[in-house]
Amino acid sequence: MIVTEVNRLFGLKYPIIQGGMAWISDGKLAAAVSNAGGLGVISAINEGPEALRREIETCRSLLRDGRLPFAVNIMLMSPLAAAAADIVVEMKVPVVITGAGLPTPYMKKWLAASIQVVPVAPSTGVAKMAARLGACAVVAEGGESGGHVGDLTTMVLTPQVADAVSIPVIAAGGIADGRGVAAALLLGAAGVQCGTCFLPAKECGVHANYKRKILEAKDIDTIVTGKRLGHPVRSLKNAFSRQFADMEYDAAVSDRQIEAFGSGALRRAALDGDVQNGSVMAGQCAAMLHEEKTAEQIIADMFREAQDALSAADRFLSKEEPHA
Amino acid sequence: MIVTEVNRLFGLKYPIIQGGMAWISDGKLAAAVSNAGGLGVISAINEGPEALRREIETCRSLLRDGRLPFAVNIMLMSPLAAAAADIVVEMKVPVVITGAGLPTPYMKKWLAASIQVVPVAPSTGVAKMAARLGACAVVAEGGESGGHVGDLTTMVLTPQVADAVSIPVIAAGGIADGRGVAAALLLGAAGVQCGTCFLPAKECGVHANYKRKILEAKDIDTIVTGKRLGHPVRSLKNAFSRQFADMEYDAAVSDRQIEAFGSGALRRAALDGDVQNGSVMAGQCAAMLHEEKTAEQIIADMFREAQDALSAADRFLSKEEPHA
Repeated sequence: MIVTEVNRLFGLKYPIIQGGMAWISDGKLAAAVSNAGGLGVISAINEGPEALRREIETCRSLLRDGRLPFAVNIMLMSPLAAAAADIVVEMKVPVVITGAGLPTPYMKKWLAASIQVVPVAPSTGVAKMAARLGACAVVAEGGESGGHVGDLTTMVLTPQVADAVSIPVIAAGGIADGRGVAAALLLGAAGVQCGTCFLPAKECGVHANYKRKILEAKDIDTIVTGKRLGHPVRSLKNAFSRQFADMEYDAAVSDRQIEAFGSGALRRAALDGDVQNGSVMAGQCAAMLHEEKTAEQIIADMFREAQDALSAADRFLSKEEPHA
Repeated sequence: MIVTEVNRLFGLKYPIIQGGMAWISDGKLAAAVSNAGGLGVISAINEGPEALRREIETCRSLLRDGRLPFAVNIMLMSPLAAAAADIVVEMKVPVVITGAGLPTPYMKKWLAASIQVVPVAPSTGVAKMAARLGACAVVAEGGESGGHVGDLTTMVLTPQVADAVSIPVIAAGGIADGRGVAAALLLGAAGVQCGTCFLPAKECGVHANYKRKILEAKDIDTIVTGKRLGHPVRSLKNAFSRQFADMEYDAAVSDRQIEAFGSGALRRAALDGDVQNGSVMAGQCAAMLHEEKTAEQIIADMFREAQDALSAADRFLSKEEPHA
């Protein structure tokens, strides 16, 4: 078994957190991940407060043991964030992951309710501020991840965040197999957060077309759009993302027109299955996924490989100088 | 000691290759890296054929043992590439690293001269073609690196290239300390290529202003420009790179005007020390560099840390399930 501070912090069999993917990470997927020994996460920003309550209830009803932890991911830029911030307190959600900024206005309330708070940080500056606010851990998310992305990659962000804060660091971005988990740990992380690799999970309710597109992706098939608007997003290349990219370099197109073009695009792909005219958000590691599996198989395979990689790490060490 | 196929392939004490940085990687730096037990690399595209001959002679004259290997890096898009391709044969350079494409037209000549050829690949497709051409190894270079960059990051590119080819893979991009080296090895690499971390080397002839700017860089201080032209380049943020970025989104500015604006910018920073109006090319890991050291100290420190990280990799392993 791989055991780190992250197992102990949340009470997990494996130090892995599922990514909070808007319109995708629901109660069923979260329960499957928590039942498998990871930390399942429900996205708070899908359809509004009632839907969030329902997903939390669904997750609880599917957990094989009521003491298993799960989390809600609140994307702070969302207009639904404030309502979600109250619901997690009211429904006694044990862990909250936050994205896109710092959860400063909510921290006092959450800490008073004994909620463990884990902000996602794209830089050492945000990670340090999160630690000062009372976060129990921080996700260092590299720009190879899917959806909303930062600039720094997992390889450079993880060790720098590990040096910058004394709370546990969870590496995210580009991790889809045991080699990635092992590498993240040696870079200074105490766990991983994975989103893309749960898209093909049997328990993931994303549209079958979206799953197929993920499983067919090649290494060079993702693109980042939205930089002009200040909100870069990584998705698979398709008619939608190519046109978005063209519009960004076209001065005749206004920012408002681009925003309107992008609006509803994730929902179109994730729920309606329109993977040409919708946004198929995914990380660069989509290309490393080859089959549909249960959440339990995904996690168990990943950690068995990671354990093998760590056990064999001394194969690179030799007592003799290769060349005197 | 860390010993892999890369030590054996080139006859190295450490499995590390210095990056070929235009206007910066000269015979003196290459000799310092080779004398320290790595593979020193001379950039072929600085001032033309005579300068390249001179740098190769300088490198040879500074090597403490004439049998030590060194390499020349040929950026294939450069108008100087064809001349450099002949010079490496004529001067019996043992290893050639190529960048920006595939060295197809030169392979027969180089292999006939027993030159070891190592192409840099930004994707699995290029890596596979390089292996088919007879390359002895391939550099998988992540987009967090400095200078000309690809899209895929080291975290996702390294394992995919390792799966795609049977020749040794050398990971590049974002590696500046022993944690990065250890992570690269567990991701499937047999060695590393580092450019940015040699910029503050005592033996590196880059202008003192450039070195200072590297040592002062924070994690979020790099930017990628040139995507509109199809040749993205990573450098530190300054007046030059900010203006370049603005011009890219300005439809009133032609591609030709942008090209003209960028022309000579690296030379201006690296040789003249104008780090505001020149291009201070560097990778994201610049923020991890804190002091000037000799090439030997840089390499020895990095590999001592990597050895410690690999030796301690089993600290994450436990025989007991953390939660039954």
